Order: sequence, then C-alpha cells, then structure tokens
Amino acid sequence: MEPVYRLTISCPDRVGIVAKVGQFFSAHGGWIVEANHYSDPVSGRFFMRHCIRADSLPFGLAELKAAFQPIADEFGMEWQVNDSSVAKKVILMASKESHCLADLLHRYHSKELHCEIPCVISNHDTLRSMVEWHGIPFFHVPVDAANKAEHFRRVNAIVAEHHADVIVLARYMQILPEDVCAQYHGRVINIHHSFLPSFVGAKPYHQAAERGVKLIGATCHYVTQELDAGPIIDQDVIRVSHNDRVEDMVRLGKDVEKMVLARGVRSHLEDRVLLHGNKTIVF
Amino acid sequence: MEPVYRLTISCPDRVGIVAKVGQFFSAHGGWIVEANHYSDPVSGRFFMRHCIRADSLPFGLAELKAAFQPIADEFGMEWQVNDSSVAKKVILMASKESHCLADLLHRYHSKELHCEIPCVISNHDTLRSMVEWHGIPFFHVPVDAANKAEHFRRVNAIVAEHHADVIVLARYMQILPEDVCAQYHGRVINIHHSFLPSFVGAKPYHQAAERGVKLIGATCHYVTQELDAGPIIDQDVIRVSHNDRVEDMVRLGKDVEKMVLARGVRSHLEDRVLLHGNKTIVF
Amino acid sequence: MEPVYRLTISCPDRVGIVAKVGQFFSAHGGWIVEANHYSDPVSGRFFMRHCIRADSLPFGLAELKAAFQPIADEFGMEWQVNDSSVAKKVILMASKESHCLADLLHRYHSKELHCEIPCVISNHDTLRSMVEWHGIPFFHVPVDAANKAEHFRRVNAIVAEHHADVIVLARYMQILPEDVCAQYHGRVINIHHSFLPSFVGAKPYHQAAERGVKLIGATCHYVTQELDAGPIIDQDVIRVSHNDRVEDMVRLGKDVEKMVLARGVRSHLEDRVLLHGNKTIVF
Amino acid sequence: MEPVYRLTISCPDRVGIVAKVGQFFSAHGGWIVEANHYSDPVSGRFFMRHCIRADSLPFGLAELKAAFQPIADEFGMEWQVNDSSVAKKVILMASKESHCLADLLHRYHSKELHCEIPCVISNHDTLRSMVEWHGIPFFHVPVDAANKAEHFRRVNAIVAEHHADVIVLARYMQILPEDVCAQYHGRVINIHHSFLPSFVGAKPYHQAAERGVKLIGATCHYVTQELDAGPIIDQDVIRVSHNDRVEDMVRLGKDVEKMVLARGVRSHLEDRVLLHGNKTIVF
Repeated sequence: MEPVYRLTISCPDRVGIVAKVGQFFSAHGGWIVEANHYSDPVSGRFFMRHCIRADSLPFGLAELKAAFQPIADEFGMEWQVNDSSVAKKVILMASKESHCLADLLHRYHSKELHCEIPCVISNHDTLRSMVEWHGIPFFHVPVDAANKAEHFRRVNAIVAEHHADVIVLARYMQILPEDVCAQYHGRVINIHHSFLPSFVGAKPYHQAAERGVKLIGATCHYVTQELDAGPIIDQDVIRVSHNDRVEDMVRLGKDVEKMVLARGVRSHLEDRVLLHGNKTIVF
Repeated sequence: MEPVYRLTISCPDRVGIVAKVGQFFSAHGGWIVEANHYSDPVSGRFFMRHCIRADSLPFGLAELKAAFQPIADEFGMEWQVNDSSVAKKVILMASKESHCLADLLHRYHSKELHCEIPCVISNHDTLRSMVEWHGIPFFHVPVDAANKAEHFRRVNAIVAEHHADVIVLARYMQILPEDVCAQYHGRVINIHHSFLPSFVGAKPYHQAAERGVKLIGATCHYVTQELDAGPIIDQDVIRVSHNDRVEDMVRLGKDVEKMVLARGVRSHLEDRVLLHGNKTIVF
Repeated sequence: MEPVYRLTISCPDRVGIVAKVGQFFSAHGGWIVEANHYSDPVSGRFFMRHCIRADSLPFGLAELKAAFQPIADEFGMEWQVNDSSVAKKVILMASKESHCLADLLHRYHSKELHCEIPCVISNHDTLRSMVEWHGIPFFHVPVDAANKAEHFRRVNAIVAEHHADVIVLARYMQILPEDVCAQYHGRVINIHHSFLPSFVGAKPYHQAAERGVKLIGATCHYVTQELDAGPIIDQDVIRVSHNDRVEDMVRLGKDVEKMVLARGVRSHLEDRVLLHGNKTIVF
Repeated sequence: MEPVYRLTISCPDRVGIVAKVGQFFSAHGGWIVEANHYSDPVSGRFFMRHCIRADSLPFGLAELKAAFQPIADEFGMEWQVNDSSVAKKVILMASKESHCLADLLHRYHSKELHCEIPCVISNHDTLRSMVEWHGIPFFHVPVDAANKAEHFRRVNAIVAEHHADVIVLARYMQILPEDVCAQYHGRVINIHHSFLPSFVGAKPYHQAAERGVKLIGATCHYVTQELDAGPIIDQDVIRVSHNDRVEDMVRLGKDVEKMVLARGVRSHLEDRVLLHGNKTIVF
C-alpha cells in the first residue's frame, strides 16, 4: 500500500463538514482512497476518517496540519492526522500466559501488524526467551502486594523511556493505577477473557462454567479507571457445551482472546477507532 | 423417521450403567439408533439419552417402563421415557410482538416442529388473527397492575384444561408467579433478548446500546423464580456496530431470538435437554 | 426515520468527486445522514452512496435530479437517486416450499421490510391461503415441460401489469428465460441453497452430504443468464456434523436461506447494493 | 486428565454392540468417562468411541487388545485402541508461510497439543530458526521441477526414520506422491485455504476475489490421491466485503486456516476422527 495520511475527526454535526473537508483535499489534488462517516443521531456528533495518498498532496504532514487547522477550528473538531508510513510504538505487557503475546509477536514478526515493539514488560520472567528470539528487549519487573507502587514506578519509567504510543495488556492481569489510565487515556488496550459486561473481574471462565452459558467470549477494550468497564473495541464468542469443563473453556477461550485482541490492536494501529464517550466508533 | 422410545437418565456415576442399560435393550432386541452419554467430573453425576426403535422391542411404552424400573431403582436413576410418535402439547404465550410467535407457528404449520399446540394465550388481542389462521384457539387474557392474580388464575385454568406438557413464553413479557414456576419446573421455556447474564431485566437492547457492545444476543432458558436466572438451553449472538441504533438492535435481535427459541423448543421436544442443577445437558 | 434521498453513484475514480458532491449538497443546505465510499484499486472505479434528509433540501426529487445531472455528466457517473418514503414494488415468486415466502411476508406484515408487495406468483397453488391472509393477491401460474413459454408469458404479463421494481425468487426453483434476466438485470434476486460456488444446480444439500462438508450455506444473488453465477449479495453458513442427514441439512439450511434472502432483499430495498461487473458493493 | 484408553470402532450395525462392549468393560471394572456413538442410516454402519480410565482396568494396553479381539471378530469391527498417555509422533511439513507452523508450534510448546514433534521438514530454509527455537530438528529438503522424485525420497526417509504417526501439511504447498498418500492413508492432514469444494487448487483467494464471495474459508482434510478431495475433518469461514482486496483475504484467511488446522489436528490426536468412505465422523 502506498503511504497515506489518516485524518480522523469528531465534531458537532452540521451541514457542510463533508463538503469543506472534501474541498480542502480536492483543492490540493488530494486523492482520497478511503472515507468513512458516522453521524450519531442521539448525541448529534459527527465522526469521520479519511485516508489520503501522501504522494498526491504537495506538502508533508506538518504543513498539512497547519493548513487544516482553520477548518478544524471552524467546526470545533477534535482531530488528528497520522502518516501511515510511521509505525506506532507499542509496548506489550504480559504475565505468564503466552498465547496473546506469542500471537501478537508472530503477527509483528511476519509483518502483518505494522508497528514497532520497543520492548515487552512482564511481572514474570517466564516469556523472556520467546520475546528475545524476536529481537525485542524484555523487562522483568516483579510485583507483589507489597511493592505495587514501586512496580508501577518502574513500569512507567520504561514506558516513558521508550516513548510508547500504545500499551497493550496481553493478559497482563494487573490493574493499572489511576494516573497511568488517565495519562494514556484511549491508548491502553486490554483483553478481558469474557463477553463483557458478563463476568467482570477475576476467573471469568469459572463464572461462565458456573452459570452454564452456551457461548464464551472475549472483549478487547480501552482501559479506564473502572475495572473492565472501558470503551469496547471488539468482542467475539465461541460455542461451548456441557462437555466443556473450565479447563476446556480456558483453552477454547484463548483462541478467541488472541483473535479479538489482534483485531482490536490492528484497528487502533490503523487509526480506525474513535472514542465517543464510553463507546467506540470502529471504521 | 421411524418412531423411537427416548430414554433419558440422570444418576450418580458408577461402573456398569452403560453395560446394564445396553444389555437390557439388547436382551429384548432393542435397536439403539441414537445414544449420548455425559459424565460430569465435578458432580460425579452421569447423564444418558437413548433412542430405541419402537418396532424393535416386543412391548409398548407402559411395559417398557415396568421392565426398566428395577434397573432405575438399582442405580438411583431419575429417568423418563417418551414415545416420539406422541406429540407433546405446547401452549404458547405471547404479548404484542409477533416475530417469535409467527416463527414457531410456521415451524409447526410446516411440520418442522413435531408438537401439538392446543392454544395460544396472550395478554393482548393483537395476534389473534395470525394464530387463528393456523387453526389454533386464541385466548386473550388481559393483564394490568391491578388484576395480575386474576390474570394468572385464568392462565392457569387454560393451561390445566389443555393439559400442556410445555409452556413457551414467546416474548410474553410478564413475570410468572412462583407457583407456576414451581409446578412447571423444567417445562416453561422463555426467550430473553440478551446474551445472559448480561442485561438481565427490562430493555436489554437499550442496555446493550448504552454499554457499546459489539455483539448482541438472545438466551433461551427454563423459567425459575429468579428473573432471567434459570438454566440456559441455548444462546446465540449477532454482530452490531456503532452504526446500529437501538431500533436496529431490536430488529437484528429478533432474528437471533426466534432462531434460539426455536432451537431450544426443538431440543426440549426431542427430550434432548436434561437438567443438572441450574445448568443443562443438551444432547 | 425521517425520509431521505438515497443517491448512489459509480464512476471512474479521480480527484474531486467527494468534494464536488459534498459541495452540491452543502450549497443547498443538504444534511447528509449516511455516506459510504469505495474506491476499487483494481478497476479504478469509484462507488458512493449518500443519504440526504429530504426536508433539508429546498426541492423535490425531480428537481434534485435535474440539478445534479451536470455533475453526473462531468464525472461520467452511472447514478440513481431514490426517495426512501416511496416503497419499492416487490413481486415474490415461489413454488411449494413456504419458509422463505413466509419469512418475507412476516417481515413485510410487521413493517420490518419497507416495500409494497403487489402480488405473489407461484407455479403451485399450495401457498395461496398464506399469501391471501396477508392481503396480497396470489397468482397461480402452473408450469410443466410442455408449457414453459406460455408460463413465462403469463408471468411477464403479471410482472408488467404490477409495475414491479424488483422480483424476488423465494425458492421459485425455475430457471428464468434470458429475456427476463436481461430486462430485469440487477433487479431479480434469487436465494440458492448452497454456499456458492459450491454445489451449483439441483439438490445442493444432497451434494453437500455426499461431499461430507462440515458447514452448509446459502447465497443470495442477482439472477443472470448463467445458472447460479450472478453477482453475490450475501451468503452465510451453518455448522453440520456427521449426525446430520440430508433431511437435517434441508431443515437447518432453511434458516440460513431465509435469513440471507431477507438481508439481501433489505439491502436492495435500501439501495445499498451497487453492481460492479459480476460482483457487488454492499454499503 | 487421568490417562485413558481410547477405543474406536467401526462395524456393520446390529443389535447388541453397545451392550457387548459395555459389558466387556463393566466386567473388568472399566470406568467409561466418554462415549460416543453414531449409527449411519444410509450405509448401515456403526461407529463408536469410548474413553476408559486406564487405572480402572486390571490390565495394560496389550492385554486389553487381546481380551477385546474376540468381540471385534464377532462383530466384524475395524478398531483400534490407544493409550492417551502415549503422545503421537507428528511430523510437520511447511514451505515459507509461517502462520500455521507458528501456531502449531506454540500450541505444542504451551502443552495445549499433546504430541511429540520429532522434526519439521520444509522445502525452504526460511523457518529454520523458528523451529529450532522450539528445540525441534529442522530438515531443509529443497524441491524443484527437476528433483521431485529425489525430494520425496528424502522426505520419505526422514518420515520413516522418525516413525511418524501423523504428517501435518502446514501450508506445505506440494502435492504428495501417490505412494505416500496410500501408505499414510488417513494420517496425512492438510489445510486448504478455501471452503472446499469451492476453489480447488492454486490461488484460492484469487479465485474467491474473482467470484465476489462474501465469506472465505479453510478446510482441514486428509490427503488422498485426488487433489483437495480427501475426507474433510473441519472447515470454517470468515466474512469479507467488497473492501477486502486479495491481500486482505490472504491475511484474514490465515486466521481461519490456523484455527481449522489446529482443531483438525487436535481431533486426530485425540482419536476423535473416524473415516467413513470419503467422509469423516468427528466425535
């Protein structure tokens, strides 16, 4: 794919937004290769994502931003524009369970996921060798009830040092402190191993087995301060039966978890996810 | 299909059950055309469903029951045996929404569902013509806050008079009184328009839209005294997006509701559903 | 939903289309409530669908068409614009199988499908009563090997007389003559009971059982002169196992057929399907 | 899970099989933890799979086989019995594409798949490091049009030397010679990247894009001499739209391929797949 600029916009809906934005690009010869719109009838808010071929425009990203600013101001837009050729920096966090991490690493390794992974952080040393085989630095930052604050101080330092654009909790299994949630609002992606809002919190497969559900699921969402309550990016389910014990659900669920997490991460990396309160628009 | 006797068994697991039951039928020339077993490792309980061709046995249902009783006693079985050629009597209850009722009536009419429908009961008169076109009596039993007890007295009388084997709440939208739940334990089937245990109670699609889920669902379950908490027979989901407003979810959900309800009713009619505490075994 | 004008466009891709169309509506105060774009990288063709609130424009449909024509000419557009408040006229054709017909009739009756059904045509008299209960005229036009030409002459006359916009073959099971295919190009919708291109032609469930597939499906497509080879609008599948005999596949497949057909018809009625050679864009 | 003996049986159906087998195990105190039956109404053949706790029987596998032989003879059974604690030897074959191989290796590494992998054979050297990181020998056996016979001689030698129970073609992309197909009948598992029987042969995603299908799929099947025509073990699909180019289909399809292949391999390793002509029974 040719490099594109990805423009995402959220603003109060009114007549003329599409025309104005379209005209702006047209006037500069901008070739729009993808365009999505959503007008929310309840909130009256408008959302838009455009991909414009970088080589069709006479200027670079900084100049584009400057040129577009007046339109953004006129319509009260929250907006950003990214260059698809600049890989986002994604820090992965994990515990001992390898399935989500191995899956993301393989997608990175095979160039399916377009990103940089400056490092992996884990509270266990279990997955070091797997990570290092991929040529990625691995930081083991242990945590226990007594040193949580210290753990997160070190995590924050590593995150800051590596200039992460996104943090992906690939079954990290620790609750992030409030200030991290706030600082990385809309940029920390978690995978929860249930079909939220069912089975919030610990041991969701045990809860699912207890309730006798016939489908189990996984939910990829942005982390907020309230546990497992952030904006949902993607979800999926898989059928189970009376034959499936908790350990079968855990096994079956892993496949759903890693698929849903990978899809959510990919959507985020491609600037397809726009926040709308506690919900998402996924173009 | 040739008529079969359907034997369902639940008992404490121990060595020799399968052999004993197999031997019993073999000794009488019984031709087993379907057999399912499940041994629950947690509760140590054993579940079994056998279909035996009726014409392969030298006796009828009553004699079969008498002959089998000693085995049932020996193993402490909860059991029943039904003749597939005897249609179960199913009373349908509905309100104003027609999709589940129309779907079940069509499956009955086209002989896909093997049952009798002695009548339909509704708290509204809206669906009378649709029901009567199918040649089925329709009872309009209005209900309001003031006459609930009277409503249920009349409903009970109709149910009793028509000797219902099963009651199906096809979007009936009224909470049944405790004594009905108790009397028809494991024989009242409801469809709830969410993927339980998410969104218990009223307006689940509004709750789903509010939470921003990416899949909506429906749950077919046996009614118990606790609202939307009975044993789940079947569930399914359908994908939604930010584009789908509540009314789209309602529309999309209808297809899931009617499919899941029809599958659950069919499983029940074919004696495929065995209760196991608050869960089901669905063979 | 407020009435909207639905504009669909297909033309060679080039810079400025979105801007020009956006500007046109913006200049007249047109409020765009839905917008979809697709730029095909292989053919270099551009596709667009816009919904504009009718009450936001200062003119009616005819005037809109006249005003838009110069833009269409400039960009070499194939285009049409429809008023969502004008129901399309849909003639349903069926044989003896009722499931697809009953499903569409119920969606029509419950106002889920926004259309008129001026009549149903069938080569059997089986479904007359069901159709007439819905207040729709039923034409029985028998067909056999000897009178095919006469059958289609009568069918054509009925279609013409009722000014059908769309013809839906709800398991009609007869191959339409070439001239009808040509005359109603992109407006005859068929449901084929397999996951095309697998199992073209007769008895697809028998073919599926023979091949031992683990999923069966259905395909909704526009009819062309080549059997089961027209542009696909929608498809879906359902899981089967060794346990499912041909008659089980037939039963399970019915649910897929009616769902897929209803979705395809709905998409067509909402002007969401654009033809692109032998493929479809479904917005 | 406690070790079990897995007995699989296929024989002409007649009264008394279940009783006889049940009695045999019951007489020796055998504790049946899983039991599946299937009676094919068309062919009149009966299929059965039993898992019996090894520690509940007074003898080992060899003695069990000897004791059971008379029953097998009486009923004309094709049968085998395996010890679940003995891992099957699985040789993986791959080309350059890593997704299926990486997925299987991770499931092996994380002990989700219970098997031994004595080696991986590939006609390219691309994946050596990935394989060796898992501690598995990697054999690079190049192939070109001129040396096919030599290639397969070397492959056969490696397979024979490592005493493979199963060969898994994890996107190996070479057609096996007839004698290998015959020798390993029912033990060579392939993943084909289409929903068979659609799109047999090369470049199925290109074929799918060409035809404009709305779902793409993958098929796990036993290899036979006819290309892509062997008994199907499992299949699945994923939704695509007009937006998905061939390269998107390739990417989306990978997830289906690896899931379906892993499920098929798992079923085979657990002795859940019984052959029935060109079809499978999957318990």
